[in-house]
Amino acid sequence: VSARFETVTIIGVGLLGSSLGLAMKARSLAGTIRGVGHRQESLDKALAVGAVDEVAFDAREASREAALVVICTPAALVPPMLDEIRPVCAADTIVTDVASTKAAIANHARETWPAPLRVVASHPMAGSEKFGPEYGRPDFYEGTVTIVEPLTTHAPDAHAAVCALWQAVGSTLVEIPPPTHDALLARTSHIPHVVAACLSVLADRLGDVRAVAGKGFSDVTRVAAGRPELWRDICLTNDHAIAEGLGELIAGLDTVRRHISDGAGDELAQFFDAAARARARVVRE
Amino acid sequence: VSARFETVTIIGVGLLGSSLGLAMKARSLAGTIRGVGHRQESLDKALAVGAVDEVAFDAREASREAALVVICTPAALVPPMLDEIRPVCAADTIVTDVASTKAAIANHARETWPAPLRVVASHPMAGSEKFGPEYGRPDFYEGTVTIVEPLTTHAPDAHAAVCALWQAVGSTLVEIPPPTHDALLARTSHIPHVVAACLSVLADRLGDVRAVAGKGFSDVTRVAAGRPELWRDICLTNDHAIAEGLGELIAGLDTVRRHISDGAGDELAQFFDAAARARARVVRE
Repeated sequence: VSARFETVTIIGVGLLGSSLGLAMKARSLAGTIRGVGHRQESLDKALAVGAVDEVAFDAREASREAALVVICTPAALVPPMLDEIRPVCAADTIVTDVASTKAAIANHARETWPAPLRVVASHPMAGSEKFGPEYGRPDFYEGTVTIVEPLTTHAPDAHAAVCALWQAVGSTLVEIPPPTHDALLARTSHIPHVVAACLSVLADRLGDVRAVAGKGFSDVTRVAAGRPELWRDICLTNDHAIAEGLGELIAGLDTVRRHISDGAGDELAQFFDAAARARARVVRE
Repeated sequence: VSARFETVTIIGVGLLGSSLGLAMKARSLAGTIRGVGHRQESLDKALAVGAVDEVAFDAREASREAALVVICTPAALVPPMLDEIRPVCAADTIVTDVASTKAAIANHARETWPAPLRVVASHPMAGSEKFGPEYGRPDFYEGTVTIVEPLTTHAPDAHAAVCALWQAVGSTLVEIPPPTHDALLARTSHIPHVVAACLSVLADRLGDVRAVAGKGFSDVTRVAAGRPELWRDICLTNDHAIAEGLGELIAGLDTVRRHISDGAGDELAQFFDAAARARARVVRE
């Protein structure tokens, strides 16, 4: 399957969108790349770094007859963007996205797009506290993992092309159904982000703690430096899994708090031991 | 003030103890270093890496007439160890420790040790998920921050010598009263650790999530790979500040959970924005 597309439209030229443009150009995967954004400044930067060849404000016009459309907006904007571009997509246009939540997007595509489906939801797990086209890098996706929904009601060629695209820019594919994706990511990414944010607020309440906040605190809270709108959208589009997991987390923290208040040393040692074992199962190191 | 001591006793030859031995030897800060441990294997390793010159099981005998005793055990063992060695310390013996909680230790020393106090509580903020003498490094303390209690009822020469010791091995001093230390560390270190542990358990409950647990999850939970007994002791010796902070954290998480369930986008964006600002105030980056 070829990962080369004559006309590519990238909607949203932030870190992920501009990196994708740079990565496709560096590997000759695209003829012309059109970048769509709503701020002139971002579009200028995307052009300046060479992530796109043309820019536009109007996603619908820019998507007309494109071979590939990649929606690189925050999660909540993906379904309305699909509605926006659907009338102008050609019969063979392939559409994908890069949002961090997948079930709402995949469901919306299934409900609104013609069959066989040429919208293939994907989630390249690449990111940074930095954002904006100026941080884009052609090697941004190298060594990352991209989660793509498994082939179901899709046109097989569209599904294969989206898979080929991510592999061509250096990412390793994992196929996971959207609802499972959202349940897994709630606990490995979204809830840790909420927690990092709450911990930052908690430490800051004591006043100037800068002198004693070491590498551990910096590591634990790093993701909290991310973009507020992005994380708002993630919370709003994966609400059930995040709220449920937060409930379990709160119960777990409350148990530890009780052990501490009770001076229950054995229970605390067992808890920390079990947690270290759990982490060793979850994290590849 | 000289940071050279003729006879040094290091009680506990784990990562911090053996690194201190190596650091003092590399800088000719010690005549003879005696290492005390309760496992032959650790003592053999500490000798093998050159962290200590002699080893012993009996802390009391090994501390007799020492110029400097550094207690490098988990926090809960420091007060009983002070009781153990007090009868054999010389009139001019200087004692310090490296535990992560300070108020209980500093209070115990004040209640039990002769005045002017020659026990000066310190906390070098250096650590690793790795532990054991085999990971000891002579440059382990370089670039770290060490919190030392301010001069109060101490013998000024003892306080100055402990400060000189940490500076001599490459650490930057910050003087903070023990109760303040414990309040600050609860929120910048101890609670983040409890949270990292709870997050590890939460993610592991879904089964095999290894494929989707990325760098963010690894960062947030890294500290949970630490030693269970160490963290049990930290919780038991800083129980009030940790329990209080956990209560505030739980309330904060519950508020976010409600915003998510209510679909309150503006409140979520404000929360994430405030958290990113709070982190920027707390973390030096």
